[in-house]
Amino acid sequence: MNFASDNWSGATDAVMAAITRHKDGFVPAYGADTLTKAIAERFSEMFEKDVAVYFVGSGTAANAISMAAGARPGGLIFCSADAHLYNDEMGASEFFTGGMKLIPLPAHNGLIAPESLAAGLSRFPADSRTGVPAMLSLTQASELGTVYSVEQIGELAKMARARGMAVHMDGARFANAVAALGASPAEITWKAGVDILSFGGTKNGCWAAEAIVVFSPERFGDLEAIRQRAGHTASKARFIAAQFEGYFEDGSWLATARHANLMAGRLADGIRASKTARLGWAPQANEVFAVLPKAAIARLRAEGAMFYEWPAEGVAPGPEEDLVRLVTSFATSEQEVERFLGHL
Amino acid sequence: MNFASDNWSGATDAVMAAITRHKDGFVPAYGADTLTKAIAERFSEMFEKDVAVYFVGSGTAANAISMAAGARPGGLIFCSADAHLYNDEMGASEFFTGGMKLIPLPAHNGLIAPESLAAGLSRFPADSRTGVPAMLSLTQASELGTVYSVEQIGELAKMARARGMAVHMDGARFANAVAALGASPAEITWKAGVDILSFGGTKNGCWAAEAIVVFSPERFGDLEAIRQRAGHTASKARFIAAQFEGYFEDGSWLATARHANLMAGRLADGIRASKTARLGWAPQANEVFAVLPKAAIARLRAEGAMFYEWPAEGVAPGPEEDLVRLVTSFATSEQEVERFLGHL
Amino acid sequence: MNFASDNWSGATDAVMAAITRHKDGFVPAYGADTLTKAIAERFSEMFEKDVAVYFVGSGTAANAISMAAGARPGGLIFCSADAHLYNDEMGASEFFTGGMKLIPLPAHNGLIAPESLAAGLSRFPADSRTGVPAMLSLTQASELGTVYSVEQIGELAKMARARGMAVHMDGARFANAVAALGASPAEITWKAGVDILSFGGTKNGCWAAEAIVVFSPERFGDLEAIRQRAGHTASKARFIAAQFEGYFEDGSWLATARHANLMAGRLADGIRASKTARLGWAPQANEVFAVLPKAAIARLRAEGAMFYEWPAEGVAPGPEEDLVRLVTSFATSEQEVERFLGHL
Amino acid sequence: MNFASDNWSGATDAVMAAITRHKDGFVPAYGADTLTKAIAERFSEMFEKDVAVYFVGSGTAANAISMAAGARPGGLIFCSADAHLYNDEMGASEFFTGGMKLIPLPAHNGLIAPESLAAGLSRFPADSRTGVPAMLSLTQASELGTVYSVEQIGELAKMARARGMAVHMDGARFANAVAALGASPAEITWKAGVDILSFGGTKNGCWAAEAIVVFSPERFGDLEAIRQRAGHTASKARFIAAQFEGYFEDGSWLATARHANLMAGRLADGIRASKTARLGWAPQANEVFAVLPKAAIARLRAEGAMFYEWPAEGVAPGPEEDLVRLVTSFATSEQEVERFLGHL
Repeated sequence: MNFASDNWSGATDAVMAAITRHKDGFVPAYGADTLTKAIAERFSEMFEKDVAVYFVGSGTAANAISMAAGARPGGLIFCSADAHLYNDEMGASEFFTGGMKLIPLPAHNGLIAPESLAAGLSRFPADSRTGVPAMLSLTQASELGTVYSVEQIGELAKMARARGMAVHMDGARFANAVAALGASPAEITWKAGVDILSFGGTKNGCWAAEAIVVFSPERFGDLEAIRQRAGHTASKARFIAAQFEGYFEDGSWLATARHANLMAGRLADGIRASKTARLGWAPQANEVFAVLPKAAIARLRAEGAMFYEWPAEGVAPGPEEDLVRLVTSFATSEQEVERFLGHL
Repeated sequence: MNFASDNWSGATDAVMAAITRHKDGFVPAYGADTLTKAIAERFSEMFEKDVAVYFVGSGTAANAISMAAGARPGGLIFCSADAHLYNDEMGASEFFTGGMKLIPLPAHNGLIAPESLAAGLSRFPADSRTGVPAMLSLTQASELGTVYSVEQIGELAKMARARGMAVHMDGARFANAVAALGASPAEITWKAGVDILSFGGTKNGCWAAEAIVVFSPERFGDLEAIRQRAGHTASKARFIAAQFEGYFEDGSWLATARHANLMAGRLADGIRASKTARLGWAPQANEVFAVLPKAAIARLRAEGAMFYEWPAEGVAPGPEEDLVRLVTSFATSEQEVERFLGHL
Repeated sequence: MNFASDNWSGATDAVMAAITRHKDGFVPAYGADTLTKAIAERFSEMFEKDVAVYFVGSGTAANAISMAAGARPGGLIFCSADAHLYNDEMGASEFFTGGMKLIPLPAHNGLIAPESLAAGLSRFPADSRTGVPAMLSLTQASELGTVYSVEQIGELAKMARARGMAVHMDGARFANAVAALGASPAEITWKAGVDILSFGGTKNGCWAAEAIVVFSPERFGDLEAIRQRAGHTASKARFIAAQFEGYFEDGSWLATARHANLMAGRLADGIRASKTARLGWAPQANEVFAVLPKAAIARLRAEGAMFYEWPAEGVAPGPEEDLVRLVTSFATSEQEVERFLGHL
Repeated sequence: MNFASDNWSGATDAVMAAITRHKDGFVPAYGADTLTKAIAERFSEMFEKDVAVYFVGSGTAANAISMAAGARPGGLIFCSADAHLYNDEMGASEFFTGGMKLIPLPAHNGLIAPESLAAGLSRFPADSRTGVPAMLSLTQASELGTVYSVEQIGELAKMARARGMAVHMDGARFANAVAALGASPAEITWKAGVDILSFGGTKNGCWAAEAIVVFSPERFGDLEAIRQRAGHTASKARFIAAQFEGYFEDGSWLATARHANLMAGRLADGIRASKTARLGWAPQANEVFAVLPKAAIARLRAEGAMFYEWPAEGVAPGPEEDLVRLVTSFATSEQEVERFLGHL
C-alpha cells in the first residue's frame, strides 16, 4: 500500500528492455548518437510540430534550464503557490536564472485562476522597479492532482503573452494530464500558447528521463550551452534516449498513465463511498487528496501504508481528521488500492 | 576500432544486472533509500575513512558542485591547462561558483609540476585584487593519459594547503589511475592531501554514475542543498546507487579499468614497435597519444577506425604527421587493437 | 511642497563642506586612505563596539552585499512584504546571493509581528526541500514610517537566531529611527541581536554614502571581496568617507533626522486636526501616510505638491479618497508643511 | 612626487563647482531628473550619434555591467592579459555574467595584436564545448600607457564581429586616449566597430563618475534592470550627472587629459635624456613605464616619491634595476615632475 509518491516506484519493463537493448557498442557521446536524434524526432511527431528537444535527467533540471533559457535580469516568474518549482527545488530556478524572483500566486486546488494571475500581474506595472514579468509556469497535471482544461491554459497563456511573458508548462506528470483530458499533446501545449515544456518521464516509469521541449525557439536562446554549463548534458546520452524509446513503445507512456489515473479514480470512488473519509477535492489525474480520520490514518500506517499528510489549505479537517495525499503510479496494483480502502 | 572516447561505450553487464535487479518495488526518493545508504557506506570502506558521498549523474556536475562547495567570492581555481574542468565543461565551474576564475597552469603531459603551481600562485599575493586562491584541481588519471604519483599529489597538495586552498581531484578516470598505480584509493586521495574527489563511474562502465566524495567536511558546506539546487539530486536515486553496486561487485570496477589500461598498453607497445608511428609520451592509463603519418590516419579512418586528432602542444609532428588520441575502455577488444596496429 | 521622497533632496551644507575640504591632494585609493580609516573608527565609537565597516554608494548595494555575505545555497531571506529589499531593488539580493529566495511576511503598518515570523518559519521545517532559513531583514525605520522598539527587535532577532539565522537591519532611515526612539545606535542593533546593518546616509543629507556595519564578523565572510567583485569598492574612497565626516560633524546626522521627523509630526498633527483628511496610521519617523479626498489631492497637485499615492492595504479609503505617502527630509521647510496643510 | 595612480588624486575645481551648484532643491530620483537627461544628451552630441547612456559610480561597475548586457551562457570574453577587467576587478565580470570565462590574450605593451586575437579565437571553433566567443574588450588607453590607433581598433573589431562577438572598450582613460590620438570620440569607438564603451571620468578629475555608452543597442538588453539589480542605479543620480557637467564644461575633460599626457611626456623625455634610467617602451598617454636603478628607486622613495614597481614582462631589467610605473593626472604639477627627474 505505497502511495507516498510516484517517484518511489522503479522502472517499467519496457524502459528496462530498451536500456538493455542499447547497452553494447560504441556511439558518439553527448547526444550526437543516432538513437538520441531518432527519439528527438519522435517528439516532433508527437507534438505535430518541429520542436527542439533537450534531454535531461531530472524534473528540477528541466524546469530550471527552461527558466534560464527565458531569463531576464530582474525578471519575474509567476507560478502557483503550490508549484514544485516554487516549493520543492531548493531555489533551482532562482539559481539558474541569476536570481529571478518567483511570485507564488494563490491557486484553487492547484490551478491558477485568471483572476489570480491578473491580480499578481497588476502589482507589477510596466515601469516597476521590483521586476519584469518574464515567465508564467503552469503545472500540468498540477501538484494537487487537478488538470487545466485546454481553455484554461489558453486563457492564462493569452494573459501572460499580452504582458510579453513566455509560458512554461511543468509537465512532470504530463502523461497523466494527457490521459485525463483525452486531448492531444499539441492541444494542451503550443496550440494553447505554451512556449516551452518540461516533459516528464521519470514519475511515470522511467529511471531518469525528462525532456525540455521548445515550441517557440525564438524566445529561448543557448539551451545547449545552458544545459552543458549545468552539467546536465549526459555523456552517454543514449541512455536517456533509450528510456524514452521504451517509454513510447506501443503507447506504453499513456498506458501507464491511464493505469495510474485509474487507480487514483478507484481510490477516489472508494473514499467517496466510505462513511468515514471524504475527498478534499475531485482528483483528475494520479493524486488523491482526502480527509481521513486520524484513527484511520494510524490504522493504515500500522498496516504498512505509506503516504504523506498534507497542509490542508482550503480544506477544513475536523479536530480528529487530517488531509492526506495518495499518489498512484504504473506500479500501483488494484490489490493495494482495495486493501487501502478496506482499512478505511 | 573505436578509440574515440571511453564515454562512447555503453554499460557493463554487471552494471546492467544491478539496475535490473532493483527495478521493481517502492523505495523512498531522493536518496533516502537503503540501497543508496548502503552504497555510500561502501565508499567509506573503500577509502578507509568516514566519507560523505553525494551521487550525481555527470562528471561535470561532480566537478562543478565540488567547486561550488568550496567557493569563495573572488576565488581562484587552479588547474592544468589541459583540465576537463577548464576546457570541456562550458564554464560549469564558473557558473556554479558565482563566477570564480579558473587559472590554467602550464602542464607537462597533463601533469602540473610544482614549479608551475608555484609560478601560478606567485601571481596572486595575499592582498591581490585579482582574486583569492581557493581551490586546486588535479585530474587523476590526467586528460593526457598520465598519472600523478602519490608523492606528486602530496607535494602539490601541500603547496596548495599552505596557501589555504582546498584540493580537489577530478577522478573521472579514477579507477584507471588506481589500476595503474597499484596504490589504494586512500593513498592517492586524503592521505596525500586531497579534500574532495569527483569519483567517476560513467567512463568505466556505468551509464551515468559519479560520486562526490568529501574527505574534509569542515571545508565544504551545504553540499546537499547545492546538489538539489542544481537539479542533480536524482528522485529515483537508487538507480545511481544500483549502478555503483554493479560497478563494485567482485572488484568489477578495477577489472574493467585494468582491461582498459592493458589495451592502452598493447596499443602503446605496438606503436613503439612500429616503424611509422611513435608515442607522444608514455601512457600510464587508458589513453594513448601517438604521432601517426597522415597517410596512416587516412587509411585507418577508411577502415572505420574512430579517434580524434589532438592539439600537438609539446610534441612536434612532422609536416606529414599528426598527433592522435586513442582511448580504450572496458569495451575495447584485443581484436580491435590488433586490427588497428595492423593498419599502421 | 515636495514630499515625493527623501532621496529627491540634495546634500546638506555639512556634507558639501566636507567633500570640498578633501578635494585636493593625493591619497591612497580603494579605502587605504587615512580619512576612510578614521571614519570607520568613528563607527566603532558610535556603536560602542569594534565593528567592521564597508562603505558603498547605494542602499541597494548595502543590502545586497550584506545578504551575499550571509548567503547559503538554497537559503531563504525573510522580510516584510513591504520591504525595500523585496519590492524596490530589482532582485538585487537574489542576484548577489546566487538565487536566495525572499519570503515576504505579512506585516502590520510595516512592522513584522512575531506571529508573522513564526508562521513564515513554520513553513520551512529543518529538513525542508524548499530552502534553508538564513537571514531575517528588518527595516528600521520601516518603509511605512513606523519604528520597531528595542524590545520588538530583540524578540524577532531571538526567534531568528533560534533557527540559526543571521539578523540584518536595513537602516536606510536609521537616523530617523534613532531620533524617533531616543535609543542609542547600539541598543537598536547588536545589543538587540542584529548581526549586520545597512547604515544609510544618502536619504538624510549625503549624496551617496552608505555603510555596511558588521557586528558579528564570524557570521559573514569575504565582505571585501564581495564588495569589490560587485564594483562597489570606490577607487576615490575618501569621497564617501568625507560625506560621513560631514554627516557626523556636530551631530549633524541626528539634527537632520530630528528635523525630518519633526516636519512629519507637523504634517501628522495638521492632518489629524483637519476635517477632510485622516492618518492611515500614526507616523513615528519621517513618512506620513494619510487618506485624502481625491479633490484635495487634485488641488494639491495643481498647486505643485509632489507626493505618491500608495497601495492602501490595511486602510480602507472611501470611493472619493486615496492613501498618499508624504516623505519629509532635512530639506523640508516649515513653510512647505504649512502650505500643504493649508490646502487640505 | 605622487605617481602612484591617477585615482589617488581628488576632484577638479570644475567638478566640485558643478556638484555644489546642484546641491539644493528637489529633483526626481534614480535618473529621472532633467540634469541627468541633459548630460545624457551631451553624450549623443559628443559621439555624433544617438547613444544610450547609463551612469554608474565605478569603472568596475561600468565594465561588468557592459559584460552582463552582452552575456551568453558559456560565453567567452577575450581581453589583453594586462586588462584591468581580468586582473583588477576580483572577478566582477565573471560574477555579473553568471560565470563567463575571460581569455587573457598575450599583448605587446598592453595592446592586443591581430595575430594574438586570431590565435586565441582559433582555440574555440564554432562547435567548441569550452565556450562561445561573445565579447572582445579593448582598453583605451591601455593599462600600459599605450593607445590603439583607429586602424588597430577597426581591425580587431572586424575580426571579433566576424565571429559574432560584440566589442567593448574599457575607457577608464578614454580622455587620455582622445587627447593622445587627436581623433574624435566617434572615430575611436563606433565608427571603428566598438559596440559599447565604459567611459571613465573618475581617473581624470571626477569623484565617482563613469558612463556606459551603448552604440549598438540591438546587441545589449535590459541595461536598466542590470544596473539596478547590481545596486548601481544612484538614487540621487543628479550627483553623477553634475560631475559630468563640470567635467565637460569648457572642454575641461580634454584639458585635464592633455595636461596629464603632457606631464607623462615630460617624464618620458627626462628619462630618455637621463644616463641612468630608460623607458620600458614609448608612452602615449598618462602612464610611463621606466627601468630605474634600484639605487635611484630607493633615493626617490626616501624623498617621498610614490609609485609602484611593475612586473617586467617583455622588458629585461638588469640585476640592479627594476621596472616602475609612473602615472600622471590633472593634479600632477611640473614641479613634481622636475623634482622627480632631478633625483634620477
